[in-house]
Amino acid sequence: MEYKFSQRTKSIGASLIRQMFNYAAEVPGHISLGVGIPPFEMPQNISSYLSRALIDNARRINKYTLGRGLPELNKAQCEKLREKGIEVDYETEILTTAGAAGGIFCAFTALVNDGDQAILLSPPYSNHISVTRLVGGTPIHIPLQENKGWELDASELEKAVGRKTKAIVVCNPSNPTGKVFSEEELRRIGGIARDRDLIVFEDDAYDFLTYGGNKHVSLASMTEFKDNVVAFFSASKEHAMTGLRIGWVVANKAIIDKVFDIQDNVYICPSSVSQYAALEALKDRQHAEQFKQELERSRVTMCARLDRMPAFTYNPPEGAYYVFPRIEAGLGRAGRIRNKKAQQRFEEIPEEWRTADTAVALDLLYDEGVVTVPGIAFGPHGENHIRLSFAAKETDINEACDRMEEWIRRR
Amino acid sequence: MEYKFSQRTKSIGASLIRQMFNYAAEVPGHISLGVGIPPFEMPQNISSYLSRALIDNARRINKYTLGRGLPELNKAQCEKLREKGIEVDYETEILTTAGAAGGIFCAFTALVNDGDQAILLSPPYSNHISVTRLVGGTPIHIPLQENKGWELDASELEKAVGRKTKAIVVCNPSNPTGKVFSEEELRRIGGIARDRDLIVFEDDAYDFLTYGGNKHVSLASMTEFKDNVVAFFSASKEHAMTGLRIGWVVANKAIIDKVFDIQDNVYICPSSVSQYAALEALKDRQHAEQFKQELERSRVTMCARLDRMPAFTYNPPEGAYYVFPRIEAGLGRAGRIRNKKAQQRFEEIPEEWRTADTAVALDLLYDEGVVTVPGIAFGPHGENHIRLSFAAKETDINEACDRMEEWIRRR
Repeated sequence: MEYKFSQRTKSIGASLIRQMFNYAAEVPGHISLGVGIPPFEMPQNISSYLSRALIDNARRINKYTLGRGLPELNKAQCEKLREKGIEVDYETEILTTAGAAGGIFCAFTALVNDGDQAILLSPPYSNHISVTRLVGGTPIHIPLQENKGWELDASELEKAVGRKTKAIVVCNPSNPTGKVFSEEELRRIGGIARDRDLIVFEDDAYDFLTYGGNKHVSLASMTEFKDNVVAFFSASKEHAMTGLRIGWVVANKAIIDKVFDIQDNVYICPSSVSQYAALEALKDRQHAEQFKQELERSRVTMCARLDRMPAFTYNPPEGAYYVFPRIEAGLGRAGRIRNKKAQQRFEEIPEEWRTADTAVALDLLYDEGVVTVPGIAFGPHGENHIRLSFAAKETDINEACDRMEEWIRRR
Repeated sequence: MEYKFSQRTKSIGASLIRQMFNYAAEVPGHISLGVGIPPFEMPQNISSYLSRALIDNARRINKYTLGRGLPELNKAQCEKLREKGIEVDYETEILTTAGAAGGIFCAFTALVNDGDQAILLSPPYSNHISVTRLVGGTPIHIPLQENKGWELDASELEKAVGRKTKAIVVCNPSNPTGKVFSEEELRRIGGIARDRDLIVFEDDAYDFLTYGGNKHVSLASMTEFKDNVVAFFSASKEHAMTGLRIGWVVANKAIIDKVFDIQDNVYICPSSVSQYAALEALKDRQHAEQFKQELERSRVTMCARLDRMPAFTYNPPEGAYYVFPRIEAGLGRAGRIRNKKAQQRFEEIPEEWRTADTAVALDLLYDEGVVTVPGIAFGPHGENHIRLSFAAKETDINEACDRMEEWIRRR
């Protein structure tokens, strides 16, 4: 039977990130700098607490949470946000969601109408492209300035705003570039949103993770833009609980009310057990400091290794755990795929993905067993880049880079 | 700031079920026959297993599950489905979802296009109405025959199918009526779907729960309709883990592929910890038999009590844990709300809900502290009914019925 899928979902397929993950399964002994999953175990205090809570079973831990998440969890998250200068009423302006992703989907559904445009600071996180499409919107990519450390060109942003523009989407710190937006850049974005009556969707999923002198500032902390901002936070990376699917949406009460009603229809509530885990995670956040230090070491290693590979030029990551190097012209010409299996995969994938970076990523995978993500996964301005996740053991980063150097030598 | 919400979400608000839950918080000492949450604790073997698994932390329990759910979980669920005559390839024809609800939302999104009609066997589960609207579809209600035990009138169904019809939605056993569809009724539905090229969405969330001689049969077990059927299953009620949000979609591979890609954008994956809990739940299902026996006792009590209240006429529930009595004419005339607070609430709620059943439910709540759900929550054919959940302690059912009798006496 030939199924007729709905219009909005026609363009929705497996992401290139997941595709690379699937291909990797065919390559024994591969090392992954692909999907961004930190190598950390869940902190022991969280596991122990949850373990005890399950045995006690005293707190309705197996039941639906019928409110906007456990009230004490929303309260704890609001106290944490206050440390960052974000003032949120825990009873009306926050909703616990199934990861930042659950909140992003429900909030985009609430606010992006069929035919609306969402401006993405490009290259954006791939899900921001696909979710915009999934809710019936059109993603408009405006390029960040790669030669200025991915700086915002506010005049480009202003020019892009038109009659159909509904929202600006910011990922801060950025997946895939590692860029951290400065307060000044954010004020420009906020100002444009306020003047043109737009929503800013700010994905702050990596907010705890900045390096060197970089500090994460959220638009949600600037009261003058507060009504325009819908901010997303996550427990996933900070507490090593990606699989537990806990995040938060912070916004004006009217938006939270609507997103809550939508969430009730989409998946009812985030996992109750996961909410208890997040509650414990917020009580003692030393683990986050430790994760950050380890990732900082991985970042130094990753950059030192990339410095030795002139085939790649890159902006040092300021936050998150990705680096997004540009590929030297010619390195990835499709005709230069050597590995037969890589060539076969290249011919199989949708035409829009058959770019130089995909050729490089596939050849690297099948020839050397190094998993990366082709830049085209992050839209048109990602082309000719690859995304490397350094949320990996240092030994793996070094081994992967050895293999990459070997691969370059043999080109 | 006045927000402009997307067209599809304009009609999406707090459900009347949740509204009643919220109102109940104002009434100290209330007894709930409202939201359907079984009173059972999570079975101890599940809690213990999960508790140990968290401490061992050996199985990547904190990480995203990147496939279609844990393969061993899908396999275990398929083995269980085989006992019911449903043959499913665990690698391609099933997807673990965030409860049945997560699967329903993603599958409706995949298959219902803007302007498509979905036929609901009415009164349907309230979420089936709102999710149809949320994905841009139009719900078409065709009434089941209340005076024949909610029997399907297949000619009504056939008449309702038109150019815009995309799907038929069946809840089996039914929330709110407690109806279990017979194999013959299902064959009629399947035949119409096959002949007219429609999808049947079959919500089997209460499949383990049938009483007396009634047996749950799923359309998914009938190979001749298999390509037309998308079936939803749930771990929530069978294993007392409503809060953990685990369910499954079963369908043709092409549909599962699409629903998987959509889920990846909506909430990435169901909670990993919850998936491990479900895995253990499926290993030893004695608890389900015990839940069923307890609910059977509650059903007998509930029906015996209703038999003594001529103000209500009802069909004895064949499955699930709801009964949907009709209110004697006049009992709920709006003018007869006695309680002032109830009257005030009645005047506040949206006009479409200001029906006799809502008047009864509000007066019962504020006058006697008994939580029920007005039938209008389940669409136009729910009017003049109330839904009573007997997933409650027997003492609570008896106390609630005492209060209801007292309330009737005083009318």
